[in-house]
Amino acid sequence: MRVSETAALALATRLLEEHGAPRDHAALQARVLVTAEMKGHPSHGLYRLPRLVERIERGVIDPQTKGTQRWRADAVLEVEGSSGFGPVVAMAAIERLAPHIPDLGIGLVAVRNANHLGMLAQYVEAIAAMGFVGIALSSSEALVHPFGGTRAMLGTNPIAIAVPTAEEPLVLDLATSLVPMGRIHHHAATGRPIPEGWARDAAGNPTTDPGRAKAGAIAPFGDAKGYGLGIAMELLVAALAGSALAPDVRGTLDSQSPCNKGDVFILIEPSLAPGLPARLSTYLDAVRGSPPAGAGEPVLVPGDRARRRRAAASRNGFEIDQRLWEDLNALSRPRILAFEGQGS
Amino acid sequence: MRVSETAALALATRLLEEHGAPRDHAALQARVLVTAEMKGHPSHGLYRLPRLVERIERGVIDPQTKGTQRWRADAVLEVEGSSGFGPVVAMAAIERLAPHIPDLGIGLVAVRNANHLGMLAQYVEAIAAMGFVGIALSSSEALVHPFGGTRAMLGTNPIAIAVPTAEEPLVLDLATSLVPMGRIHHHAATGRPIPEGWARDAAGNPTTDPGRAKAGAIAPFGDAKGYGLGIAMELLVAALAGSALAPDVRGTLDSQSPCNKGDVFILIEPSLAPGLPARLSTYLDAVRGSPPAGAGEPVLVPGDRARRRRAAASRNGFEIDQRLWEDLNALSRPRILAFEGQGS
Repeated sequence: MRVSETAALALATRLLEEHGAPRDHAALQARVLVTAEMKGHPSHGLYRLPRLVERIERGVIDPQTKGTQRWRADAVLEVEGSSGFGPVVAMAAIERLAPHIPDLGIGLVAVRNANHLGMLAQYVEAIAAMGFVGIALSSSEALVHPFGGTRAMLGTNPIAIAVPTAEEPLVLDLATSLVPMGRIHHHAATGRPIPEGWARDAAGNPTTDPGRAKAGAIAPFGDAKGYGLGIAMELLVAALAGSALAPDVRGTLDSQSPCNKGDVFILIEPSLAPGLPARLSTYLDAVRGSPPAGAGEPVLVPGDRARRRRAAASRNGFEIDQRLWEDLNALSRPRILAFEGQGS
Repeated sequence: MRVSETAALALATRLLEEHGAPRDHAALQARVLVTAEMKGHPSHGLYRLPRLVERIERGVIDPQTKGTQRWRADAVLEVEGSSGFGPVVAMAAIERLAPHIPDLGIGLVAVRNANHLGMLAQYVEAIAAMGFVGIALSSSEALVHPFGGTRAMLGTNPIAIAVPTAEEPLVLDLATSLVPMGRIHHHAATGRPIPEGWARDAAGNPTTDPGRAKAGAIAPFGDAKGYGLGIAMELLVAALAGSALAPDVRGTLDSQSPCNKGDVFILIEPSLAPGLPARLSTYLDAVRGSPPAGAGEPVLVPGDRARRRRAAASRNGFEIDQRLWEDLNALSRPRILAFEGQGS
């Protein structure tokens, strides 16, 4: 079925408010989920909402807190997330740091113990909209094996970067795993084997069985280089946020554990060299206009596809699984008691 | 032939001093080249020395300058490199910024118009040795085609990251190209075809002919993700340093153009959470000790191999092409006139 942006935001916001979130917290968390849907990433979208509700009910999300901020140094804001919504804790800290960036030139937010951020792109887009370069990193549970290894030792450790230009910003958002775990779950749900090289089973053997892969480990993207980047991000986030390392991270996938991963945001004022923003967008246009490998398949710049999808979804709505939509409606206040009664 | 670290440093330092470099500048530039040799990366080693000498003689390297530093903001040091040696300009700026990092928490150096840095690992190793997390980025001439594209539009845009731990730091240093252009030159020199997928020719067609690849473009590593990272680094460096974008960069490969690429260094004080450095090194040891994919091929952490090679080379010297060694000796003062007489 197809739903509108407005309807999806209204339902998600109401549901979170009904579970104790102040209106602004509910609206921000809802916006993050709905925007992921609109960009074509349902794995970071509304299907996560029932788990958020469950986590609130179990007390491992505190829907009211923005976390506790402390200036660790002139340009570093350290945040104890106190089980708050990931987007609420993160945006509160980014907004606290941002006014200082013109004086500082660069600043960093280091968060621990906040809940899942959803797609990182949205944070760096918000930072780019303020006129700054944005970098966002987040750690996660162990799902990825080292290059040359077989056991899940690293998180999917996503990286997002946005650079403002005279036109649209470049927006990169990538996980350092070859594929998202969600894609493997999707293969499992639809009974299709996964391609060779994607994953290993719990015993460390290569597998094309998505069911076995779910209990095992995903390959890093880009072989040794992608692994190198992933483990560097693993260490970077832990070193800056003081958060847990992948084998000890909990609460990003389950419904019962407090979340102890870390998030890092870096805001940087670009050079004020005259004409620079126009030079950046002219360059991106030259890349887009460079000869493609496949006829009729123009070269893309990171962020182009998501921006187009989001604009289309804003006009025409987006597809959502009918059952998910009904489940979300069923979670609203009158039925919550039944839900709790089921012991979930 | 095999040479010792001491002999290589002495020759390279003397040669640069003979061409007008103050002793400390010569020693630092020599150290960067010799350390690359010792780590097993001759493409960033002494074979670059004759070109440095030629660039000094043509006036596109000023061996005496450290560049002009200016605080662009409280935590950002902007440097006009003024055609100085890359390592000299970079380390002078890093050493100027470093004492402020305990107060600031994070700081950035943005350099434009300095010469080639050599391997980025050495800068982040120096930063990690000060107790800080180090990130280094540098732009370069257009050598890499976009994912889905065919024309060289991006630099090889290397990224280096070091994170200090209780033991050795993690040290990542990777180019965002699938292979270094030096590897393609090496295939050309030895008459071997390159594997499919490495490169395209000047017309944009896939090629296994290294001669054609030299005039064309290298693939990005890791398909769409590696391309995304490479173009993000391209824009990031230009946005922060105000430097040229790849299609306009000159002077990193040739002998006659001033170098107009950019370099970015970020220094960050880690979290002071108790026991954190030990927790990081324990984690790295767990990764190293995790089950390998191939029997007898233990999992490596970025920096392990280079560290081992460097230690062995420090004890036993390293292999160098005899002709290169003789060429370097021939460049010393008495023969320089002959070299100049040849119009090089």
